[in-house]
Amino acid sequence: MSKLTGVSKRILIGRALRSDRLGETLLPKRIALPVFASDPLSSVAYAPGEVLLVLSIAGVSAYHFSPWIAAAVVVLMFTVVASYRQNVHAYPSGGGDYEVAHTNLGPRAGLTVASALLVDYVLTVAVSISSGVENLGSAVPFVVEHKVLSALAVILLLTLMNLRGVRESGRLFAIPTYVFVGGVFLLIAWGSFRGLVLGDSMRAPTADFEIKPEHPGLAGFALLFLLLRAFSSGCAALTGVEAISNGVPAFRKPKSRNAANTLALMGVLAVTMFCGIIGLAMATDVKMAEFPAKDLVRDGVPVGDAYVQDPVIAQVAAAVFGEGTFFFVLLAAATALVLFLAANTAYNGFPVLGSILAQDRYLPRQLLTRGDRLAFSNGIVLLAGAAALLVYVYDADSTRLIQLYIVGVFVSFTLSQTGMVRHWNRKLRTEKNQAKRRTMIRSRAINAFGAFFTGLVLVVVLATKFTHGAWVALLGMVIFYAVMSTIRRHYDAVAQEIAAPDEPTDDSVRPSRVHAIVLVSKVHRPTLRALAYAQLMRVDKLEAVSISVDPDDSKALRAEWERRGIDVPLKILDSPYREITRPVIDYVKGLRRESPRDVVSVVIPEYVVGHWYEHLLHNQSALRLKGRLLFTPGVMVTSVPYQLVSSEAAKQRAKKRQEWNAPGSVRRGPVDGRHRDPGVRS
Amino acid sequence: MSKLTGVSKRILIGRALRSDRLGETLLPKRIALPVFASDPLSSVAYAPGEVLLVLSIAGVSAYHFSPWIAAAVVVLMFTVVASYRQNVHAYPSGGGDYEVAHTNLGPRAGLTVASALLVDYVLTVAVSISSGVENLGSAVPFVVEHKVLSALAVILLLTLMNLRGVRESGRLFAIPTYVFVGGVFLLIAWGSFRGLVLGDSMRAPTADFEIKPEHPGLAGFALLFLLLRAFSSGCAALTGVEAISNGVPAFRKPKSRNAANTLALMGVLAVTMFCGIIGLAMATDVKMAEFPAKDLVRDGVPVGDAYVQDPVIAQVAAAVFGEGTFFFVLLAAATALVLFLAANTAYNGFPVLGSILAQDRYLPRQLLTRGDRLAFSNGIVLLAGAAALLVYVYDADSTRLIQLYIVGVFVSFTLSQTGMVRHWNRKLRTEKNQAKRRTMIRSRAINAFGAFFTGLVLVVVLATKFTHGAWVALLGMVIFYAVMSTIRRHYDAVAQEIAAPDEPTDDSVRPSRVHAIVLVSKVHRPTLRALAYAQLMRVDKLEAVSISVDPDDSKALRAEWERRGIDVPLKILDSPYREITRPVIDYVKGLRRESPRDVVSVVIPEYVVGHWYEHLLHNQSALRLKGRLLFTPGVMVTSVPYQLVSSEAAKQRAKKRQEWNAPGSVRRGPVDGRHRDPGVRS
Repeated sequence: MSKLTGVSKRILIGRALRSDRLGETLLPKRIALPVFASDPLSSVAYAPGEVLLVLSIAGVSAYHFSPWIAAAVVVLMFTVVASYRQNVHAYPSGGGDYEVAHTNLGPRAGLTVASALLVDYVLTVAVSISSGVENLGSAVPFVVEHKVLSALAVILLLTLMNLRGVRESGRLFAIPTYVFVGGVFLLIAWGSFRGLVLGDSMRAPTADFEIKPEHPGLAGFALLFLLLRAFSSGCAALTGVEAISNGVPAFRKPKSRNAANTLALMGVLAVTMFCGIIGLAMATDVKMAEFPAKDLVRDGVPVGDAYVQDPVIAQVAAAVFGEGTFFFVLLAAATALVLFLAANTAYNGFPVLGSILAQDRYLPRQLLTRGDRLAFSNGIVLLAGAAALLVYVYDADSTRLIQLYIVGVFVSFTLSQTGMVRHWNRKLRTEKNQAKRRTMIRSRAINAFGAFFTGLVLVVVLATKFTHGAWVALLGMVIFYAVMSTIRRHYDAVAQEIAAPDEPTDDSVRPSRVHAIVLVSKVHRPTLRALAYAQLMRVDKLEAVSISVDPDDSKALRAEWERRGIDVPLKILDSPYREITRPVIDYVKGLRRESPRDVVSVVIPEYVVGHWYEHLLHNQSALRLKGRLLFTPGVMVTSVPYQLVSSEAAKQRAKKRQEWNAPGSVRRGPVDGRHRDPGVRS
Repeated sequence: MSKLTGVSKRILIGRALRSDRLGETLLPKRIALPVFASDPLSSVAYAPGEVLLVLSIAGVSAYHFSPWIAAAVVVLMFTVVASYRQNVHAYPSGGGDYEVAHTNLGPRAGLTVASALLVDYVLTVAVSISSGVENLGSAVPFVVEHKVLSALAVILLLTLMNLRGVRESGRLFAIPTYVFVGGVFLLIAWGSFRGLVLGDSMRAPTADFEIKPEHPGLAGFALLFLLLRAFSSGCAALTGVEAISNGVPAFRKPKSRNAANTLALMGVLAVTMFCGIIGLAMATDVKMAEFPAKDLVRDGVPVGDAYVQDPVIAQVAAAVFGEGTFFFVLLAAATALVLFLAANTAYNGFPVLGSILAQDRYLPRQLLTRGDRLAFSNGIVLLAGAAALLVYVYDADSTRLIQLYIVGVFVSFTLSQTGMVRHWNRKLRTEKNQAKRRTMIRSRAINAFGAFFTGLVLVVVLATKFTHGAWVALLGMVIFYAVMSTIRRHYDAVAQEIAAPDEPTDDSVRPSRVHAIVLVSKVHRPTLRALAYAQLMRVDKLEAVSISVDPDDSKALRAEWERRGIDVPLKILDSPYREITRPVIDYVKGLRRESPRDVVSVVIPEYVVGHWYEHLLHNQSALRLKGRLLFTPGVMVTSVPYQLVSSEAAKQRAKKRQEWNAPGSVRRGPVDGRHRDPGVRS
């Protein structure tokens, strides 16, 4: 059947791609930016809204805190960017958070970060796509009317694209990202021009709405708590910053410097857009409520369930450009597209991280070889499935999904920054050169502050969002952590079990003689070949064995055997129940019982056929027999293949399947470029 | 993954059954009757209704033809029974229609019969279950209100039962069948007593209904055509008669005589019940219409879609026993149950026929060994799926399904009877003994008449029902025929291709030397064992080969190799892309190119693990590599298994899986009892 699904897969997902030029492409900054930064840049599409939305709980009056919150986010953003510039310089190999934590804080920390990142990839997909749909919906109502369906459709589309092994093309990524950034800047510029110079009063669609506060007149600690919550929502703008630090090998030389500068540029762009949008939202009186249906009031009556709350960026665009104008639609489209690209980056990051984890034996081996389409596919399907589930459960509501989002990000921020501090300490122990020491000390200071600040934010996020959904993310992390450490334990246990004893000669694996049996059903070319091969290996005892499912057949076989004068003794085993496997197994066991120190070598002639349906018609019993024999100690099983003409087809397919291009190649850079500290390989 | 489904299967279907006593059971007549005759006997539950239903098209007046049609059915039934009594004597081996046709009329005829039978098995399930649901519905309205759902549920239930390898228990079958037969006879007896002796007027629920004829005042040829159509619907009563002739080996000695008598008894019971029910239907003024909603009129108005038309037998029972009385409910239940049993017989017949067809290489080999749970499961799932599809498409409406039904039956009747005539001719050519000759000539006469009559009916059925759905059945037959002959052609082509050349020594398969390579990843017990085994076979050249996915690892490996002083040269192949398969393949191809007459023996150490999830964690690359190597000519692949502790579990499971009891054992009789003319094995 596997073959069958293989075929249907091919129909659905297209034939495998060639990957000759894999790893050649190196990215100039202008391309690297969109490739790596679509995630953090796109997050300004929802982060500002979330801030206002949380503030609205205390009523519209609380909106005047938003500049302060924006400021805090900016500071945080610069801290994080500054810290990661250190990572980039310290790990030109593109050591991501996982590696930094693993190397410097040990496996547990590493695994924690890994779990956090895996959860985050899932959430990136869920959040980005939901928000993308909402943004698209501001221009194309149909989409938002069938929100969950559209979101799931997009997930499906991305999944198929990535299963097909889509080659992540920098250029393709650049366009929408730049359109989006350009659009937002135009929005800000034109908005401030109209507002400050022309003095137009720009009114957002929700400008005349009232907000019925959930908790009116919040003050003191409660208010502080609310502000902190608003802040942690705003932190959504920071998601994906670490992406660049994973991607250093993909940059043109000087890799580290280019990566660091790209990082800085990204940070500047992000915060500018973030603040600009918040500012315009204030200027245009955007109103956002957590529960718009009941808390948004138009002319004294709640707007009700029919009302769709457009994202802040869309409302601002409506105010500045005018609803439905060319720029309005363009921006909406670009926003949606860049958000979908952001989701796609997760599709690429997931398998890359997977293969690193597989290298450290936290995940199945086959994820290790990047060429392994099957493994990647499983990873991608897992990612898509989890994201789809979240989208479905949370009705593709980005606001509710964001509650889950930021935890993971800050777990990995904090741990990787802490790791960096350790890293510098280690380096400083050996480093003599004063100039170098000074820069190191500086870097350590930055990372230390980064660790402290992100850690603080993590605490805030946990405190303010735990009950709002953060616990789901934590649960997800715990599950990933448990699974991965179990896998690792299993691998270690097996390694233990099969570890070679130290004295070179070990009796248990030193058998005396080989007794070879060739399984024969008829006298045909495969049989003759198997016999010929078996005779070539000068074993101690060689016999042909046939299972008699029908007396007449066996008689005929024996006759043919004599007629041809085949110089191998033929033994025929009875099988009243027309079974193949059992008699052979019993016979082999018998041989072992007679002379336990003998090895039994079972030689099976097999035809090799070309198509899955032919597989259904052949070799089934041979396969099953092999399966059983492997469980019998002191046995080796030899297949002597006989290639039928049709097998050529399958051969070609197998080749193709191997020359398949795993996603994430561009982000990862040249394959062999990635060289890792021995420290990691525990 | 296959393991995974294996596990879930077990959860769903239960653990395998032991089958020690397989084939011991031989059936006394009183048990054989219900086991084999549940299908033909149960068909009297719907056949009479179908007759009236068709007649109603010409209006209620046409009902007075029903006795004539019943008479025709009786004659046909006796003809068929008489003919099959000859089969039973001629083929005590239980040669079914397929075998008779195959042996005497050649493969094409045989295959045609086989296709017909396969289609019929599907329809037996669909029709019996739909009708069963309708009958049950007469007592339990809920069932018939959710008709399709209930029918599908029953199919699912039977499927699970049979996948589980339910042991067809004669006793279990006997009870409902006898209750049903007893009930119907009681119905007839009590009915005639009330009617003739007490002179009660018994009114069926539909007695006061009018029928709006579809074609009023039908006459001449049109009427004749209608009568013929009614007749061919009545023929539904004959389905499953051949079952007994397949089951002769399951009878107690003297097998043939007992089988023949059971056959006769079955015929008598069937026709009596059939006529009795038609008679009572007339007496109680049952009204049946093809489209009850519009053609059944109560007090001048059509009854409409809400109306459910109960089966004749239920209506009669309502009239005779009174609706909802104990006997009424009992009969309804027994009828439903016996119909479900009839469906179950198809579940048993299908795999049995499958294994016979596999023997003649019309179906995949693995269907041959009855022990092969997997194969049977596939067959059963196929059967269930097709039946479910029909039930779904035809809204579980037995009336519409019966249109498809009878074609197949009569195709096989006709061909097998024709085959019998040939059979007697052949026998008569050699037979000298006059007494014997006389009986043979008599038998031939009977079979000849049978062939003629059933052939005539076949023509009638085709003529009258083709447009009403018979074409679907024919299409099904064509598909089965095409598939099976393709499979056969494939097997023949392969046999051709691999046929051994006649001169005993053939250069193409006489290589000169063996170059063995042992694949090594680390130095651990599996590797050491593989090396030890490889060394035991005194090959011409032996080396260890390792793929370097990481320079450090390879360095360590080589060091370890030297430290242990392993006396096999170690070659390390580079693999920049972290691939395992390709470098090995290329290396092997290289060796072959250097010395084409060498055989390359690739020895792969494998761990054997116990659980499917461990499989996901191990051996993937080994498996894939083996797969690829088999396509490379001049290579043999040897697995040297190393059983991990956990493998014990899997070993046990594998054993269990093998000791599983295939369905249909009872109907088939002792396994090795079945001995077939050499003529068949073409």
